[in-house]
Amino acid sequence: MHMAKTSLLFIACIVSLLSHTACQAKVLSFNWEVGYVYGSPDCEEKLVMAINGQFPGPTIRAKVGDTIDLELKNTLETEGVVIHWHGIIQRGTPWADGTAAISQCAINPEETFNYRFEVDKAGTYFYHGHYGMQRAAGLYGSLIVDVADGEEEPFHYDDEFNLLLSDWYHKSIYEQTVGLNSRPMKWIGEPQSLLINGRGQYNCSLAAHLIQGSSTCKFTSKACEPVVLRVLPNKTYRLRIASTTSLASLNLAIGNHKMTVVEADGNYVKPFSVDDMDIYSGESYSVLITTDQNPSSNYWLSVGVRGREPNTPPALAIINYRPNSPSKLPDSSPPVTPVWNDYAHSKSFTYKILAKEGTPRPPPHANKTIALLNTQNKLDGYTKWAINNVSLALPTTPYLGSMAYHVNGAYDPQPPPENFPLDYDVMKPAKNPNTRQSTNAYVFQFKSTVDVILQNANALKENVSEIHPWHLHGHDFWVLGYGEGRFQEKDASKFNLKNPPLRNTVVIFPHGWTALRFVADNPGVWAFHCHIEPHLHMGMGVIFAEGVDNVNVSQIPKKAIACGMLINNHLP
Amino acid sequence: MHMAKTSLLFIACIVSLLSHTACQAKVLSFNWEVGYVYGSPDCEEKLVMAINGQFPGPTIRAKVGDTIDLELKNTLETEGVVIHWHGIIQRGTPWADGTAAISQCAINPEETFNYRFEVDKAGTYFYHGHYGMQRAAGLYGSLIVDVADGEEEPFHYDDEFNLLLSDWYHKSIYEQTVGLNSRPMKWIGEPQSLLINGRGQYNCSLAAHLIQGSSTCKFTSKACEPVVLRVLPNKTYRLRIASTTSLASLNLAIGNHKMTVVEADGNYVKPFSVDDMDIYSGESYSVLITTDQNPSSNYWLSVGVRGREPNTPPALAIINYRPNSPSKLPDSSPPVTPVWNDYAHSKSFTYKILAKEGTPRPPPHANKTIALLNTQNKLDGYTKWAINNVSLALPTTPYLGSMAYHVNGAYDPQPPPENFPLDYDVMKPAKNPNTRQSTNAYVFQFKSTVDVILQNANALKENVSEIHPWHLHGHDFWVLGYGEGRFQEKDASKFNLKNPPLRNTVVIFPHGWTALRFVADNPGVWAFHCHIEPHLHMGMGVIFAEGVDNVNVSQIPKKAIACGMLINNHLP
Repeated sequence: MHMAKTSLLFIACIVSLLSHTACQAKVLSFNWEVGYVYGSPDCEEKLVMAINGQFPGPTIRAKVGDTIDLELKNTLETEGVVIHWHGIIQRGTPWADGTAAISQCAINPEETFNYRFEVDKAGTYFYHGHYGMQRAAGLYGSLIVDVADGEEEPFHYDDEFNLLLSDWYHKSIYEQTVGLNSRPMKWIGEPQSLLINGRGQYNCSLAAHLIQGSSTCKFTSKACEPVVLRVLPNKTYRLRIASTTSLASLNLAIGNHKMTVVEADGNYVKPFSVDDMDIYSGESYSVLITTDQNPSSNYWLSVGVRGREPNTPPALAIINYRPNSPSKLPDSSPPVTPVWNDYAHSKSFTYKILAKEGTPRPPPHANKTIALLNTQNKLDGYTKWAINNVSLALPTTPYLGSMAYHVNGAYDPQPPPENFPLDYDVMKPAKNPNTRQSTNAYVFQFKSTVDVILQNANALKENVSEIHPWHLHGHDFWVLGYGEGRFQEKDASKFNLKNPPLRNTVVIFPHGWTALRFVADNPGVWAFHCHIEPHLHMGMGVIFAEGVDNVNVSQIPKKAIACGMLINNHLP
Repeated sequence: MHMAKTSLLFIACIVSLLSHTACQAKVLSFNWEVGYVYGSPDCEEKLVMAINGQFPGPTIRAKVGDTIDLELKNTLETEGVVIHWHGIIQRGTPWADGTAAISQCAINPEETFNYRFEVDKAGTYFYHGHYGMQRAAGLYGSLIVDVADGEEEPFHYDDEFNLLLSDWYHKSIYEQTVGLNSRPMKWIGEPQSLLINGRGQYNCSLAAHLIQGSSTCKFTSKACEPVVLRVLPNKTYRLRIASTTSLASLNLAIGNHKMTVVEADGNYVKPFSVDDMDIYSGESYSVLITTDQNPSSNYWLSVGVRGREPNTPPALAIINYRPNSPSKLPDSSPPVTPVWNDYAHSKSFTYKILAKEGTPRPPPHANKTIALLNTQNKLDGYTKWAINNVSLALPTTPYLGSMAYHVNGAYDPQPPPENFPLDYDVMKPAKNPNTRQSTNAYVFQFKSTVDVILQNANALKENVSEIHPWHLHGHDFWVLGYGEGRFQEKDASKFNLKNPPLRNTVVIFPHGWTALRFVADNPGVWAFHCHIEPHLHMGMGVIFAEGVDNVNVSQIPKKAIACGMLINNHLP
């Protein structure tokens, strides 16, 4: 098996002799097992969903052009599992996108599934569970793609650190889910801790105690000590920062050090300098810092909550100037991240993100525009989120299988609405908050250019509108603009077509809109959804499909789609 | 669908006009959904696995000859599920036995499975989850089969009560399982509560407090108040008692009232009278009580732990003589159940269980005898249980499917050992405690008579040997005898062939043996295992198969077996 793969690669190399990078591209093989272990991410012992016993899961490090060939074995007792490779486009391998009920059947206990796909763009990515709320159980890790040999990043740095940010609940995902499914809903509340690389400090005001040299904050295990970044003075470091939080939007700041943002979601951006930066769930950034401060001191890195009144202590890490001891406490307090509801500050950061010169520009016109209204709703007394008044329900047969094999009845064939009523007041709670569930999907003409207006609205409660970071699978998109209130046709004239950033995740601000453009040129079925785990669970997502008839059905691994209506019925 | 079933029954009735009961037999239809809900079985709020929102699940009440036709929908988020109908023989419907990886594939989330089977013998049965440790999560309920119309029970009673006994942990089954799978093992410990019909009182010494009229024992919800059995004086009541505990062996006693045992596991027994009775997990009994005590008082019913040093308070119910108030406290203390390790007392009870006259007798000779040594073992440092040094591992393709379709490689084809070394000292820890795992199965000649000697042994620790209640699927068996120490050939001469009780569950006492006989005449694949949930999880079971080639493969629902190696490979 392994031999065969190597030979194929060898042939591919001969065939593409002209290409410099193709022959250096490797197949990176992994054998992973997903299972629960006991862990203490924030010093409270809980179950965490781990990979090969590790939490967070192992970091994958590859180069552009490499193929990841990963056998994933499910060693959970009774639960299915999948893993989504967040930010990887999966061109030609839509069955490897790792979305249960969309691109594949959940992998049953003791079964394996082979994820084989190419990484075709350098950047900071990550992976995570995409079934039920398994991401919130700890099923995630980093995926870093370096430029190909002989290529160079368009900025200089001496070394780098990787910071994967997450939030952590003490209630199991089963309790969280049952709460969300209850009537009335039992909201999961705020996370108990924020984690940096899987480490946090529950109920322990490090900021106060460590600084005063108090020992009231005991770490019962190494697992929850603050992360230390050991640096040398007068060097430049790249920090790769990604957020896979279940709920929390974050802000990150480093005492005394400015940060220069150079990458967002695996795309280079026009460098800009900030004191603190926002990171929404599903986003990734690279920032450069220069260690030009007083080298006799160490410095705090703080991560705090944005967009929701926080009830979670900040996560802290230490920038340790060598040769200082890593346990030497910084002279100054940890930077205080901005007030949670200072949206002007957040917008100011987000609006600065623009494409680096040389980034592909969007097509000048869209073939189709759809508007997606995000609302909080009721369904028979249950709380839901809906898009154009449709709350997403997933089918038992993955769309990729049912669309490729034209299985009738596997999902609602009625196209979902492409707009919402003209008289809907996005500044007020809905007059009629009732919604419906559906499995329907947006099917776009292959290779067409699509504009999506993400329209935020008021939630069920007066004067409440939340932040939602939307993530698109299978594509990057250009962010054309943001605005306040309801999107109006004239707003399109102000779209940035010159240097809009390419992203895979973008935020809509409270009561505002965000416009994006993408080319529907990747045959497959792709989730587009709010990356807040409980919001997706409550229906806040849509399904995009394009060119599925261009997918060679014989290439789709049967394991990926042999469930639901495709069990022994439609497959050859 | 429903129409079709009714017509079939009608035709069946016409065809079998001569049979009185057949035409009164009904198809009882049920639509069930399994999912988690919040519940407070012992006044601590936890997740419980419920059916249609109920915990315990709904009681099924049927008559002999009825067909249960039950659509089970899995509404769990990410977990599979199955339900086993404990004590139902499933003749002709081995795919409806509800054992994951043995008789069927786990039912995936949002999928349904149709359990359709006949109940052919009156008695006290129950049903429960048989995948992972889902039984311990609360997935169980009662199944009562009455004699057919026109038939009579062989004893008189005025009314009846049903008591389903269980134990309850505050740690989730996920935590319990990970603990058992850890190296070194984290033992799950003793249950926090014992439950009667899903109700218990955690950390609340009712015995002490209620009797003294203290109000220190608050019930925060109706859900955990003691069960009240409202009786009239001078009547005879049938108590149906079944135990679906995860771990605890139980003893039940009623203040001032003797009990006459009349049924065990759906088989009538020679009536005998006791002050208290043992019930092991997987067993069911009917006892008669006569309400001939002072009618101005109420009386306690107590359930306590046997066989393990208990760390769980007793469960209590109140026998309420009408017209006394149900909240009037009994004059006397709750009966104290026997000391946990008074094995002489337990044996005395068990040895009294003999078949009622008229019960079918066993064939006089066995065609084959196998001895199954029960040992606690180590496997790479993990703690396991093994039978003849094989710790049961379940395959991903259910045996019923792989055997019926002759799929190579789905399980270990090497027959498991039918005996154990002559020099094995059952009174001492094993000299070499290492074991191995296997998916192998005992395949018996169809219609042969098989004797099984269940041989207990010392556990890993000196002077420790535990009680194990063994449950056989698909059959009743005759209990031929019990003994101390290692079974010897001459013990067979003392087998009771005159009136051995028919059971589906039988206990082996510490350091002892139990002999049973059954006829392998039910085509299918059947689990035979210790009914203690964590013991089964740790490998304490075997697989019996017989006459699988007599199963009509076209009758096996594809849903039952289309997983593992049978996905789109071998099914027509």
